[in-house]
Amino acid sequence: MPVYSISHVENVRVCVVMVGLPARGKSLISQKIVRYLSWLSIKSKCFNVGNYRREVAKETAVNAEFFDPKNEEGMAYRKQAIDLAIKDMMNWFVEENGVVGILDATNSTRERRDRILKLCRENYIEPMFLESWCDDKELILQNIMDVKTTSPDYVAKPNEFAMTDFLKRIEFYESVYESMDATTDSELTFVKLVNVNSQIILNRIETYLESRIVYYVMNLHIKPRSIWLSRHGESEFNLTGQIGGDANLSERGWRYAKKLPELVLKSLGEEHKHTNLTVWTSTLKRTQQTASFLPYKKLQWKALDELDAGECDGMTYEEIEKAFPEDFKARDDNKYEYRYRGGESYRDIVIRLEPIIMELERQENILIITHQAVLRCLYAYFMNVPQEESPWMSIPLHTLIKLEPRAYSTLVSRLKADIPAVSTYKEKGTSQLGEAKSGETIFKSRDLLHSGDVI
Amino acid sequence: MPVYSISHVENVRVCVVMVGLPARGKSLISQKIVRYLSWLSIKSKCFNVGNYRREVAKETAVNAEFFDPKNEEGMAYRKQAIDLAIKDMMNWFVEENGVVGILDATNSTRERRDRILKLCRENYIEPMFLESWCDDKELILQNIMDVKTTSPDYVAKPNEFAMTDFLKRIEFYESVYESMDATTDSELTFVKLVNVNSQIILNRIETYLESRIVYYVMNLHIKPRSIWLSRHGESEFNLTGQIGGDANLSERGWRYAKKLPELVLKSLGEEHKHTNLTVWTSTLKRTQQTASFLPYKKLQWKALDELDAGECDGMTYEEIEKAFPEDFKARDDNKYEYRYRGGESYRDIVIRLEPIIMELERQENILIITHQAVLRCLYAYFMNVPQEESPWMSIPLHTLIKLEPRAYSTLVSRLKADIPAVSTYKEKGTSQLGEAKSGETIFKSRDLLHSGDVI
Repeated sequence: MPVYSISHVENVRVCVVMVGLPARGKSLISQKIVRYLSWLSIKSKCFNVGNYRREVAKETAVNAEFFDPKNEEGMAYRKQAIDLAIKDMMNWFVEENGVVGILDATNSTRERRDRILKLCRENYIEPMFLESWCDDKELILQNIMDVKTTSPDYVAKPNEFAMTDFLKRIEFYESVYESMDATTDSELTFVKLVNVNSQIILNRIETYLESRIVYYVMNLHIKPRSIWLSRHGESEFNLTGQIGGDANLSERGWRYAKKLPELVLKSLGEEHKHTNLTVWTSTLKRTQQTASFLPYKKLQWKALDELDAGECDGMTYEEIEKAFPEDFKARDDNKYEYRYRGGESYRDIVIRLEPIIMELERQENILIITHQAVLRCLYAYFMNVPQEESPWMSIPLHTLIKLEPRAYSTLVSRLKADIPAVSTYKEKGTSQLGEAKSGETIFKSRDLLHSGDVI
Repeated sequence: MPVYSISHVENVRVCVVMVGLPARGKSLISQKIVRYLSWLSIKSKCFNVGNYRREVAKETAVNAEFFDPKNEEGMAYRKQAIDLAIKDMMNWFVEENGVVGILDATNSTRERRDRILKLCRENYIEPMFLESWCDDKELILQNIMDVKTTSPDYVAKPNEFAMTDFLKRIEFYESVYESMDATTDSELTFVKLVNVNSQIILNRIETYLESRIVYYVMNLHIKPRSIWLSRHGESEFNLTGQIGGDANLSERGWRYAKKLPELVLKSLGEEHKHTNLTVWTSTLKRTQQTASFLPYKKLQWKALDELDAGECDGMTYEEIEKAFPEDFKARDDNKYEYRYRGGESYRDIVIRLEPIIMELERQENILIITHQAVLRCLYAYFMNVPQEESPWMSIPLHTLIKLEPRAYSTLVSRLKADIPAVSTYKEKGTSQLGEAKSGETIFKSRDLLHSGDVI
């Protein structure tokens, strides 16, 4: 009998059908939903019809006229693209046991939506339409700026051309667009977001999964902000290699705590040095001591406490290997799922962090001082790190990480305090601690580093 | 620095202004919100204007004509009632540090709502309008049946009179009713529920508290269902008086497990014996063993695990008193807040049970097999037991509790299996276990017992 998290109550598959004119944030929302659900181990995938269209219409000039509903060649390519995307999605549901598929396209007309609806129902998949509707000119322009600088359709095109062409493209879509409507579409399951959540219409949201997705989307905002992550300073347990416990900071840990205000200011930069932020810590002494010199509002969260090592609390990895050799190996074999005797697994941490993530999405500037395992899980959410990798990321002590969520990525920068600390990183298959052989996994490939200062 | 739960991030006071014709479930929703928030230790209170009106109009005949907008005497009383309710609510915010006040009235007109809006803004209270709108005749009739049998306005009146009179009263309200509207009310924070959540309109939901209330309301349903609660059968640790651990059932515990299917069938009754239900257990052996003979679908939840006693895990109360006398006393002094060294408090359990409660609200028939402290917290939610009392409730072993949520109360019944078990109840100020002196607190006053069979 496997252990269920809140996400496994129903046996439901959902197809989220995005609806909206270009530049309404559909792809942003789609990608965030996939990231959130994947982090909760709910298998989900986004099928972006634009990518399929670029694939099938390869050699064709894709300017605004391509999107004229009267352009038969364009229409044929576009139909081919959506058909391919839907086919791939249906295969994915069956072959890879997908749970939430997102069809990221404008799906502007009722005719198109009815066809998708029919296909979903034939395949026992619950269709949920998610419309992003916006008439706020400023928001749309901001979005177009983002799109035209990132869209593969405008690579190597002058900015001005991109802008004019894109506006024209939107006009063609507008000419046929049918918004979701509480009367006409009253039988459908749908969500309509009006001007980024200033109004939301929910219609026939019935399953638990749908209600989770809706609640998540309700809590998103697009104001620019940053999130800082730091482990506590080196603790006395770190020096002796013991895990868990509620030890005080070491002398070097206290030095990090004293340096932290300066690191934060440096990371804010001169022009934002008066930015207000809130500090979240766990309930354990080492995180509160680390926060003690920061001149900001502080909140303690039990949910940010370190992974509970149960019977192994207070032991070193060597002692654990000796006392529970089978457990030690089992943990190395599947570190994400392994639950300490009487304690927790990484999966358990993710479940208890879920409300923290929801609250982080709602908040603006937050600095979180927490523990190795918890920080790995938070980082995995923002950087979309697969669950099997996240427990193996190296997150060094005495380093401040800054995350800046952008439309399609999260910028990462880090500031290393020039204060030595022991390594708490354990490679697979050994009980010895040391620098991560594979380099600092946390800052690998998928990160866009823009600074690595040592101060 | 106090420990914050997810509910304390903001410093916001909210006035939920109910809107809706009579018999639209406003009071039911109001009371559920108050129960939910109180359980989360968010100070909240409902101000029912009907009660104020009955108070001020004492001697006046309150039949439908009283509610005719042309009846000047009636209108004067009604104005007096709402003024009194608002005044009391404002005082409550200030004098008792209230956080969420609910103004339970029809608040049918924009004029009335504007006045409340103005008062809230003057007092730095966030107004959130919550409209229950319904045109489903069957639902309304069902609701009227409930109301006329419970409303103090129709005490000792014949049923037929009540029905006719109440329908007439609704007509008077309808003649002036102005529903919330996405265009006219676009500047307000409001939620509009259409036909019990088949459609929901959310407008300018901004604070965290508001979004929590909205999410809770979104998940409510009104289908009849039951919830069963049981502790695991007597365990080997129960025999030795040890707390925590992951022990097996005792011989008598196994006998309870074998008897449980029969208890469940008996509690379902002959005509519902084929009712489908789902069994939820914790991840600990003693709950799973207790569930092992039940022929239903089973799910395990980490969140249903027993209170983590940290360093005291596996000890008896006598040993704890000897080893940590100060902690032992501190726990007796404030059992709800006391957190075991390296372990949990009752408050911590409530936080981790919150998603379980949300899921329970969504589900239909569920049988939960869990542990003493967790069961106390779940029971406290359904029966509205104050947090300072809930850790002291006596919940005996080998007893199946059935809860049947009704419009304005929850029916409780229990079936005792005729299998002896030790008592695990500890009175304040002693380390000895024994029967609760004050009787079985759990089944006191606020419960409506309708059976206590021994089989």
